[in-house]
Amino acid sequence: MGFAEKLSAAVRRNDSLVCVGLDIDPARVPAGVRERADWIGYFNAGIMEATADLVCCYKPNLGFYEALGAEGWRGLRETLAAAPRDVPLLLDAKRGDIGSTAQAYARALFDDLGADAATVSPYMGFDAVEPFLAYRDRGVFVLCKTSNPGAADFQDLPCDVDGERRPLFEHVARAAVRWNDHGNVGLVVGATQPAAFRAVRAIAPTLPLLVPGVGAQGGDLAVAVREGLDAAGAGILVASSRAVVYASSDTNWQAAARAAAAELREAINALRGANGDGPRALS
Amino acid sequence: MGFAEKLSAAVRRNDSLVCVGLDIDPARVPAGVRERADWIGYFNAGIMEATADLVCCYKPNLGFYEALGAEGWRGLRETLAAAPRDVPLLLDAKRGDIGSTAQAYARALFDDLGADAATVSPYMGFDAVEPFLAYRDRGVFVLCKTSNPGAADFQDLPCDVDGERRPLFEHVARAAVRWNDHGNVGLVVGATQPAAFRAVRAIAPTLPLLVPGVGAQGGDLAVAVREGLDAAGAGILVASSRAVVYASSDTNWQAAARAAAAELREAINALRGANGDGPRALS
Repeated sequence: MGFAEKLSAAVRRNDSLVCVGLDIDPARVPAGVRERADWIGYFNAGIMEATADLVCCYKPNLGFYEALGAEGWRGLRETLAAAPRDVPLLLDAKRGDIGSTAQAYARALFDDLGADAATVSPYMGFDAVEPFLAYRDRGVFVLCKTSNPGAADFQDLPCDVDGERRPLFEHVARAAVRWNDHGNVGLVVGATQPAAFRAVRAIAPTLPLLVPGVGAQGGDLAVAVREGLDAAGAGILVASSRAVVYASSDTNWQAAARAAAAELREAINALRGANGDGPRALS
Repeated sequence: MGFAEKLSAAVRRNDSLVCVGLDIDPARVPAGVRERADWIGYFNAGIMEATADLVCCYKPNLGFYEALGAEGWRGLRETLAAAPRDVPLLLDAKRGDIGSTAQAYARALFDDLGADAATVSPYMGFDAVEPFLAYRDRGVFVLCKTSNPGAADFQDLPCDVDGERRPLFEHVARAAVRWNDHGNVGLVVGATQPAAFRAVRAIAPTLPLLVPGVGAQGGDLAVAVREGLDAAGAGILVASSRAVVYASSDTNWQAAARAAAAELREAINALRGANGDGPRALS
């Protein structure tokens, strides 16, 4: 089963657009867990066990694992091994390199680690993304309008293509649509970028959008849902990391993570229901 | 000693602008080496031993190590441990993520792995680069005009900033100059992009340029040297990977790598000498 099918099955089954970011942080993991030799895998397995029926995707960001060196990579592998088979796993890696190296990265993420999907950077153009796209059954989310302040530095620059002036991120969205021969391309659009959703949806009405930036970054969930949903009332993956996985650093961490994930799911679903597509377009 | 000093000392000592790319490839490593359990570290240590007096930098590209999983990471560590202390080591990682994650990546590359320099992607803007820049004694090479065909997809788009129309990569070069408060910023400009050197040097006359794309990618060494050298007759790191490290897959691999590195050094130095700065501006 490819990424798209696995994702839409999880969306339907769990009636959820929540994507939980598994961003491991030794300072926030409960002390009792941190003492274990296998603390990374154990903690993430516990989070997944507590939330597997509430989410549509899990998303470890590789940066947090790389920062922990060999222990981090071992923990990432344990996390992948513990992931439920029916919830897709997206590796947030933001890789981008020339063809032969991109191929090596794609192998690392898709073959060696076995991810269902990954994020990639568009700066180096098509041949830096193509080796990922060639894995037809995996999802490839192209950075478009990101959630951070620096998104304005280049992504918003007005650029001309064939006499048409648009901000760079819209040209990236148009390229992503062209790159979607295998139906496996998505885009990253931050919830902190309300104006971007309408522009991106006008260009790419059916591409799944990975939406970081709710929670700690202060993104606007209502706009992201209202403007981001596709015609079927789905098509967005609302990413939340800290607010879910570190909801509590006490012994009740699993229950607290479950409650936080449920709360986000309900908040999104209330907005989906209010979107005029009927109460639950997909359930 | 910071990256800049370490680099310029190696350039002077070895009279070399050659940066050897340590891109590990199980299919090209000599069979006798490949049989060893520690083949990655052993091979790279052998290449470095054979070339340490001929180069100014070593540059492992992380993609090739990640593709080999745990074995690759172990091999990368062994490589770093074996690197000569007086030749800077640049990790070609092309990372780029929001602030907190960029911080994690910077820790991974600079603290955990101990690299002297790294490559980063500019697409996400300043706050994705800033955590790297904060390591004042490390070099941060920002992707500007890359060597691959896809470089044309976005890097060449004409963009307006304050009414001034320039291709995106020139705006990136201008940003890199603004980001250079600690004197630790460089740019990546592919040797396959002859026209880009003059434009980048006009914007950033003193920033070091990492120049991939000679050799297998068919870049123009003469233009890269003529247009890329700084006022002191240095300031470029000409990267070559396969042509040096896989010069031979036979038992003479070390001697062949040494000969290839020496040949590239001489070719560059002949062009430097012909540049009108005197025979060897820096030696």
